[in-house]
Amino acid sequence: MAVYTEVTDDDLEPFLNDYDIGEIHSLHGITEGVENTNYLLHTDKGQYILTLYEKRSNPAELPYFLDLMEHLSSKGFNCPLPVAARDGAALRDLCGKKACITTFLKGMSVKKITPDHCAELGRSMALMHLAGQDFKGFRKNGLSVDAWEPLLESIGKEADNIAPDMYDEMYKELVTVRSYWPSDLPQGVIHADLFPDNVFFLGKKLSGVIDFYFACNDFFAYELAVCLNAWCFEPEIWEFNTTKAARMLEAYNAVRPLSAEEKHALPVLARGSALRFLLTRT
Amino acid sequence: MAVYTEVTDDDLEPFLNDYDIGEIHSLHGITEGVENTNYLLHTDKGQYILTLYEKRSNPAELPYFLDLMEHLSSKGFNCPLPVAARDGAALRDLCGKKACITTFLKGMSVKKITPDHCAELGRSMALMHLAGQDFKGFRKNGLSVDAWEPLLESIGKEADNIAPDMYDEMYKELVTVRSYWPSDLPQGVIHADLFPDNVFFLGKKLSGVIDFYFACNDFFAYELAVCLNAWCFEPEIWEFNTTKAARMLEAYNAVRPLSAEEKHALPVLARGSALRFLLTRT
Repeated sequence: MAVYTEVTDDDLEPFLNDYDIGEIHSLHGITEGVENTNYLLHTDKGQYILTLYEKRSNPAELPYFLDLMEHLSSKGFNCPLPVAARDGAALRDLCGKKACITTFLKGMSVKKITPDHCAELGRSMALMHLAGQDFKGFRKNGLSVDAWEPLLESIGKEADNIAPDMYDEMYKELVTVRSYWPSDLPQGVIHADLFPDNVFFLGKKLSGVIDFYFACNDFFAYELAVCLNAWCFEPEIWEFNTTKAARMLEAYNAVRPLSAEEKHALPVLARGSALRFLLTRT
Repeated sequence: MAVYTEVTDDDLEPFLNDYDIGEIHSLHGITEGVENTNYLLHTDKGQYILTLYEKRSNPAELPYFLDLMEHLSSKGFNCPLPVAARDGAALRDLCGKKACITTFLKGMSVKKITPDHCAELGRSMALMHLAGQDFKGFRKNGLSVDAWEPLLESIGKEADNIAPDMYDEMYKELVTVRSYWPSDLPQGVIHADLFPDNVFFLGKKLSGVIDFYFACNDFFAYELAVCLNAWCFEPEIWEFNTTKAARMLEAYNAVRPLSAEEKHALPVLARGSALRFLLTRT
């Protein structure tokens, strides 16, 4: 929720000279994005997002993310499209950081999630999984099951400051989840952070997905499990809304049918996903 | 540099139903504005700024600021124009705060100030002073000379944590400035916070002025003194750039000629202005 790197008119002018996107109209730092600095850039040719990758981004991984967004866009999936400068490169340098301009996506994230939103998400998620199938890049999911024990150890008994016996409970859960974790399910590129903040709607229609900086190769059904957790619990009563979950699964299944093994694995994938996000919330 | 109040799609939809500005395309919290929360709002009719007035704003004073922006806009001065809802009122309620939509101004504030920028500012400032002359509203400058002693007392000896004898030096300066402070100079509506952040340029041309929430009635020459301080010192060498100052004064004078008394008062007004902003920097 911050602009970590201030970009002034003096930095921006020479930077934009390498592009063919017209004259600057305005630049506004926006509060979205926890990891990186994001600006909304207007030129006489339109609106763009300018992202500066801050220190938690690994520069070596950035081409994977940008290539993926380009690949998905080329397949008709609505996500930010990296804009290449005149020399063909989209990944640039600005204010001592790696930086990229992408197209601007219309839409807003939704606060009050309805079953219709869940169905829209299920459908788009399946389309994204299919669109990524012939993507050449590969990135291991560094925050999957093997990473959880070291993460839990780094937190240690401090977890008990949140709730009594939290550490022991998480450890027990980790052991159970690990022992049931599937070893072979259909896999490919997943977004891996499809929380409501990263999904835009225009009216009732899903208009686009943003923030691909956790994308990686993993089980498709794991992504579905993350979304069941993130989208289908009722925020105030903490109850699982089976209508929402059913709509999401049906819509997904209509585009990319789930195998019996995938369906069978969903409960353990959902437990693992809950643990994964619990372990990285600080 | 923050969004203090989160506006969701659920809040925004019913709010915009009262307006005639089209369908929502997007809403992005922007980092500009220290006092209030600002969003950049896109609809299918264009771009707007949505401002929520936070607790440091006095709701009773908001009509003065909005009426002033409307008045100056109607005179052809480029500043945000409050957008009225269908019932004619621009000042509304949103998320428990007073709120207003204004038009979006193209341009960017400048970091590296040139003499040309200073001349542009001088000219626009004079045009703004003239445009405000028949404005009916009145708001006392609550941060002028009479306010400085109570402000200094509220800081007290803590000022010495910044530099040795700071308190005594400020007190001495306050007494001197107060004894020479003019009692009668041409006056009217001034912006009172014309720092580079609040002035937009497109290329070399000043494209607009924002953030009128310190506007008040005071000496025109006091505004000029604030700008001489804020725009004409070289940031790294801390030297007064007389070329910049001369260009600003000439350009101002060409639009609204300064009287001998105003010119004579500039040094004490500049000393007072330096003290005023020093007293409110925390």
